[in-house]
Amino acid sequence: MKKSDIVRTLLKNRYRHAPLHSSATAYAPSNIALCKYWGKRDQELNLPVTSSLSISLANKGSFTELSLTQNPNDVVFVNGQQLDLNSSFGKRLQAYFDLFRVKSSLFFETNIKTNIPIGAGLASSACGFASMVMALNALFGWELKENELSILARLGSGSASRSLWHGFVEWRAGEQSDGLDSFGELIADTWPEFCVGLLIITEAEKEISSRVAMQRTVTTSPLYSAWPLKVKNDLSTLKRAIGSKDFRLLGETAESNALTMHATMLSAWPPVFYALPETITLMKKIWALREQGFMLFFTQDAGPNLKLLFLEKDAEAVQREFPHVDIIKPFKQTSKE
Amino acid sequence: MKKSDIVRTLLKNRYRHAPLHSSATAYAPSNIALCKYWGKRDQELNLPVTSSLSISLANKGSFTELSLTQNPNDVVFVNGQQLDLNSSFGKRLQAYFDLFRVKSSLFFETNIKTNIPIGAGLASSACGFASMVMALNALFGWELKENELSILARLGSGSASRSLWHGFVEWRAGEQSDGLDSFGELIADTWPEFCVGLLIITEAEKEISSRVAMQRTVTTSPLYSAWPLKVKNDLSTLKRAIGSKDFRLLGETAESNALTMHATMLSAWPPVFYALPETITLMKKIWALREQGFMLFFTQDAGPNLKLLFLEKDAEAVQREFPHVDIIKPFKQTSKE
Repeated sequence: MKKSDIVRTLLKNRYRHAPLHSSATAYAPSNIALCKYWGKRDQELNLPVTSSLSISLANKGSFTELSLTQNPNDVVFVNGQQLDLNSSFGKRLQAYFDLFRVKSSLFFETNIKTNIPIGAGLASSACGFASMVMALNALFGWELKENELSILARLGSGSASRSLWHGFVEWRAGEQSDGLDSFGELIADTWPEFCVGLLIITEAEKEISSRVAMQRTVTTSPLYSAWPLKVKNDLSTLKRAIGSKDFRLLGETAESNALTMHATMLSAWPPVFYALPETITLMKKIWALREQGFMLFFTQDAGPNLKLLFLEKDAEAVQREFPHVDIIKPFKQTSKE
Repeated sequence: MKKSDIVRTLLKNRYRHAPLHSSATAYAPSNIALCKYWGKRDQELNLPVTSSLSISLANKGSFTELSLTQNPNDVVFVNGQQLDLNSSFGKRLQAYFDLFRVKSSLFFETNIKTNIPIGAGLASSACGFASMVMALNALFGWELKENELSILARLGSGSASRSLWHGFVEWRAGEQSDGLDSFGELIADTWPEFCVGLLIITEAEKEISSRVAMQRTVTTSPLYSAWPLKVKNDLSTLKRAIGSKDFRLLGETAESNALTMHATMLSAWPPVFYALPETITLMKKIWALREQGFMLFFTQDAGPNLKLLFLEKDAEAVQREFPHVDIIKPFKQTSKE
């Protein structure tokens, strides 16, 4: 099935309607998975093998301005710099716009501002595509429901399906081949004391894209077969931990889930290893602090940077131990919403 | 089943025979697994979940002098230093000697000399117990067969079952509960050009013993269930690679096997991570060299040190890239045999 079929199905009689407005803006937070999305059951539609669960990063995310242009081409600015449309991301974004061109002469001008490093495992494509979908929805006046927006965001980037909300979000894998049952859903629970700390080791773009690494893992790792059951158990544990505000249970489960995802990559061939030496130094420091009774956990995505998980009462101590940490309070800093 | 039952079964009418000589000496090489032993099906008898395959390290190993003593206690020297019998290794060795005390008043004096770091993932216990078993066999005059010696060595340390020979050795897991079908066997093929390079990052003893790490992996890693099939495939591939002298196939399989073993540890809880930052730096250097066409692979055991695998024609280049490497030619340096 093709992306354009899904868009046609979702938009129904609004498909190919002209934009209602000449410009629109939207903000979407980045999100960090506590239970990871790793492996696709459909490459074209970004349908995952397993469900996943994330926490949105409040005021860390993407702000998208979208308008129509008279130019005979899309015009894209990322953080004020014009994007080469022949670059990898340029092509990807144009192909995404193709899904929504009412006529072949309709082109978009967009200005994406993001306050997190791009392509460094900080879900820049998640917030980027989520904010783009919200801006498209406003521009065209589609008035889509949240789950429909989530599906459209997923067509841009899998984890974008989780970036339409603040707070904890579950992306259900779904079972249908058209993926119309595969979208994010907000988990109602809030946890004001919950903190995420970004430990940025490098803002450099990763050498292997998550897309490539994921696919290599699925096709070559002898351990991948055990991953779906691990996710099933971790998801259920994480939801229980969120419901009962059991931070230790949440932290242990999230860290174990991340390490197990990296374990599946380490066993792929050629091996995929996102950690840098500094990543290992930080991991060992976190483990040593935990040995001392510190309630501090981490998660790691397709990049060398770590994300700390802790409660607000420990924020000062975390700042002291990790002077460069960027602390986010997902339930207290949603001003850019 | 207890170790003493196995010893009694193996020694038959020689069980409790007095020593034939007053002293004996033996040498056994250390060995590095190309297909790892990771997980026990019997803790007491060191029976493995899977078979494994190793290369012996020629003149890197243990030289054991064994004699009877009039002291009312065992006396153990390791590299010239007297061992505290209440230390972890002291207790382990005494319990091993208990298996062979003809009468309760018989005590051993032993001097173990080893030319590799102890407890740092370089199979010091493998060569230590293998040389001890050979010395015991000589002292008592048992005239045991190699497979019987291998079983006795296994009772001391699992991987010791592979240290009775030079060259490639397969340790067959066996199926019996008494483990009498679980012993090492020499693979007849030799490969004179085959080299191993020790990259010692630290000689410090590891924080978590392989015994503990292995058991934690078996009981807590969600990925361990996929390990036995990985080993089955790798073993068959490695034997094919040795038979046809296909170095690339051997190297890729050995490296992938090691990384997959470490992947099962990374997914255990609490996670077990033997790599140090320097280990990662070296791994990335090896991968970068391979990208340039260099036929260089590594394996890693329960410690941060790496062991390079390459052919003799590349020895000079390896020495240039890794000035501190200690190069071993397993089929050319067996003078201490």
